[in-house]
Amino acid sequence: MPGERQLPNRDELHTWREFIETTEALRSALTARLHHDTGLSPGDYVVLLALSEADQNRMRSSELAAHVGWERSRLSHHLARMERRQLIRRENCVTDSRGAEVVLAEPGADAFRAATVPHLRAVRELFVDALTPDQLAAATEITAALKAHLAGRTPGD
Amino acid sequence: MPGERQLPNRDELHTWREFIETTEALRSALTARLHHDTGLSPGDYVVLLALSEADQNRMRSSELAAHVGWERSRLSHHLARMERRQLIRRENCVTDSRGAEVVLAEPGADAFRAATVPHLRAVRELFVDALTPDQLAAATEITAALKAHLAGRTPGD
Repeated sequence: MPGERQLPNRDELHTWREFIETTEALRSALTARLHHDTGLSPGDYVVLLALSEADQNRMRSSELAAHVGWERSRLSHHLARMERRQLIRRENCVTDSRGAEVVLAEPGADAFRAATVPHLRAVRELFVDALTPDQLAAATEITAALKAHLAGRTPGD
Repeated sequence: MPGERQLPNRDELHTWREFIETTEALRSALTARLHHDTGLSPGDYVVLLALSEADQNRMRSSELAAHVGWERSRLSHHLARMERRQLIRRENCVTDSRGAEVVLAEPGADAFRAATVPHLRAVRELFVDALTPDQLAAATEITAALKAHLAGRTPGD
């Protein structure tokens, strides 16, 4: 059965499952900390991060959806809530079909800046402090290998 | 400045950011493959996985929300769509305030089973094939260290 040879063995599958579950747990723990310390949800933070790194702190909603990896309807609901809290603004553009522009508002920029130190402290406590220097170096190497492998694949492969 | 010492240095922060972005990209690539091969979205898959591993293939919606890490409103919308596709059923329980029970339906169980081989093949191609045996062993070790560190923390730390 030629197809069978392509499947991971039990150890490989165990490594995969622990890896993906633990990275998810790590992400959850970090975002829970962030929410506790700053009042920002993970969704708020990812949107504010994207806008704060975007040219002129603004992005098309279609680009933003692709960037954060959400479906358009989920992003739209989330942005409506962020707009009510004045973290972002949406500006409609009648000559362009790519959707409204999403703009980082001043209170959003302030909230993002205020979250930086608590966020970095959580990264240190939850990730860096968990690993020895050798393990951190190995994490860098593994990440680079995974990233290169992903980048070498054509979409839809 | 005592607070500063708790922050990660530039290399540590770079490792963190590459690590968390790459694991997210890996998760996205895997779920895109799954959707392409099986028609299941990541959300569908995580719900079907949770129910297929649950006692009697059923869970309270409150437990399911905690298990998958979603807000209740997001889960509720997602379950409504899955129910229309007959992948799950929701059964109301008038004597219990913990919310409806969510039950794996037969077409949902079939869809989940049919997704197993494509899912495993994608794990092999996107994760296992990216790493040398030494890197896989290091990934196992790093994951265990991160998991133990997370487990050793009390909630809200």
